[in-house]
Amino acid sequence: MNFTVTTLGSSSAIPTATRNPTSLLVNMNYRYFLVDCGEGTQIQLRRFHFKIQKINHIFISHLHGDHFFGLIGLVSSFHLIGRKDALHLYGSPLLEEIITMQLKATETDLIYPLIFHTVDAEKPQLIYEDEERYVKSFPLKHSIPTTGFLFGEKERPRKMKKSFLATENVPVEEIPKIKAGADYINEAGVIFRNKDITISPPKPKKFAFCSDTAYHEPVIEEIHDVNLLYHEATFKSDLEQVAGEKLHSTAAQAATIAAKAKAGALVIGHFSARYRELDSLLQEAREIFPNTWLAEDGKIFYVRDLQ
Amino acid sequence: MNFTVTTLGSSSAIPTATRNPTSLLVNMNYRYFLVDCGEGTQIQLRRFHFKIQKINHIFISHLHGDHFFGLIGLVSSFHLIGRKDALHLYGSPLLEEIITMQLKATETDLIYPLIFHTVDAEKPQLIYEDEERYVKSFPLKHSIPTTGFLFGEKERPRKMKKSFLATENVPVEEIPKIKAGADYINEAGVIFRNKDITISPPKPKKFAFCSDTAYHEPVIEEIHDVNLLYHEATFKSDLEQVAGEKLHSTAAQAATIAAKAKAGALVIGHFSARYRELDSLLQEAREIFPNTWLAEDGKIFYVRDLQ
Repeated sequence: MNFTVTTLGSSSAIPTATRNPTSLLVNMNYRYFLVDCGEGTQIQLRRFHFKIQKINHIFISHLHGDHFFGLIGLVSSFHLIGRKDALHLYGSPLLEEIITMQLKATETDLIYPLIFHTVDAEKPQLIYEDEERYVKSFPLKHSIPTTGFLFGEKERPRKMKKSFLATENVPVEEIPKIKAGADYINEAGVIFRNKDITISPPKPKKFAFCSDTAYHEPVIEEIHDVNLLYHEATFKSDLEQVAGEKLHSTAAQAATIAAKAKAGALVIGHFSARYRELDSLLQEAREIFPNTWLAEDGKIFYVRDLQ
Repeated sequence: MNFTVTTLGSSSAIPTATRNPTSLLVNMNYRYFLVDCGEGTQIQLRRFHFKIQKINHIFISHLHGDHFFGLIGLVSSFHLIGRKDALHLYGSPLLEEIITMQLKATETDLIYPLIFHTVDAEKPQLIYEDEERYVKSFPLKHSIPTTGFLFGEKERPRKMKKSFLATENVPVEEIPKIKAGADYINEAGVIFRNKDITISPPKPKKFAFCSDTAYHEPVIEEIHDVNLLYHEATFKSDLEQVAGEKLHSTAAQAATIAAKAKAGALVIGHFSARYRELDSLLQEAREIFPNTWLAEDGKIFYVRDLQ
């Protein structure tokens, strides 16, 4: 499955000349999920040559402006370009009130269905599911109710070995059973064991998003074994106390969570505007978790199995 | 007086990869006025190396999202960076409701005074004034109440001729009277006529902003003789009917207004996202009003006397 994460904004509350506020685009086999939607997200999407119409699901972690002030603009643009498909928004119950009020104030009577889904910030929850994928939310530790999100592939059926199909004339109705794990018995009564006639599917992959949050070990259970972890790293360790007070994390703390969760790779983001260069944050994280990368605006990360 | 206009966004309702929604920064002798505040304006300001803290007055022409969705982000950033000075917002009475509601939803208790000034969209109005400058609003013709803005320098006192001050020992208290136009009589009873001992100050300059609006001749009276006119030109003339239906203007109509108002120069902007290249809009306008320029993002225009 093609599974990528594009970082659209890597700044914390205050944007800079080169870093937009938080937003990520998750592509799971050409189903597109937007995670957070800071101001300017729709412009970033266009800058990075993405057709905004492909987005049907938007997840908002919490109601600090740098994570959702771009949502009303995107919702309005969908209206102006004649969208017909439903748009699903997942987040705080207050989100509906904020968006609805602004649509009313701008006399916008949306021509497409806008469907709000309330996310419970108190406990882990399955919030989206289709035949191939699922999205779970889980609590983070921040100054207001905030959730992380886990994007996972579902277990896929086993694949038939071509060499077996070439030699045995298997009835079509038997194929799904074999793919689901059954053995096959041919007309002559010969038993073919499943493991000999099928190949294991790729291991399902997972991506987790954790922003904004203080260092919070309970998330480790929720994100264990993810192939890719995005974790906020607003500060360097010399400001660990400030990070604690503001309920944000340092680069070292993000790396510690990644290490304890046995993540495959770590992307850090949500950088304080005070940092002009980010190499020192990267180095700090890499000392604890070597496979760490910076969430620079426009950068694309593959979610893949490193084993 | 240093009098410039920086265009921060030149797109109409839908932004493009290279054109942000509407916003302009007016610098009148280092007092900074922001006109409209589409999504991403604060990021544009930073991109063009402007210190956002210098802005104390923001004018919003109307409540279509592409003209104000960036306001809440800017208001929030001011709060986060510890602003103390009052911020004055001028626009529809609904603006206060929209901003206040979002501040409440994001649990933001602003640490600086935010002062709303209601602009009457029905008739011309003086909405700002200080010792050197004034701002007037005037009605435009659009689908919702919309105002244009006129930024003007006040008449300045006459300047004393240095050659006269070098030969006559003029008492200090006489200087302001002479600068205001009085003649001077010295101790010997010699009369010096004002026009012989003073120099005329530079002619006051004016900049007018007209977006969004259909072709609307009543504005000509309000913007007559402006040195620089910004007028929207959403469409080319082949879409004049669409422009009329949507209460927008064509490039030719913008140029016609500029010509009839005897403007010094014209900047066109608010381009429909359908136009990838803008030269044809520019040529269309220049056929009617040769001194026309494109409002590309980041471009700075001097407001000056071309006579």
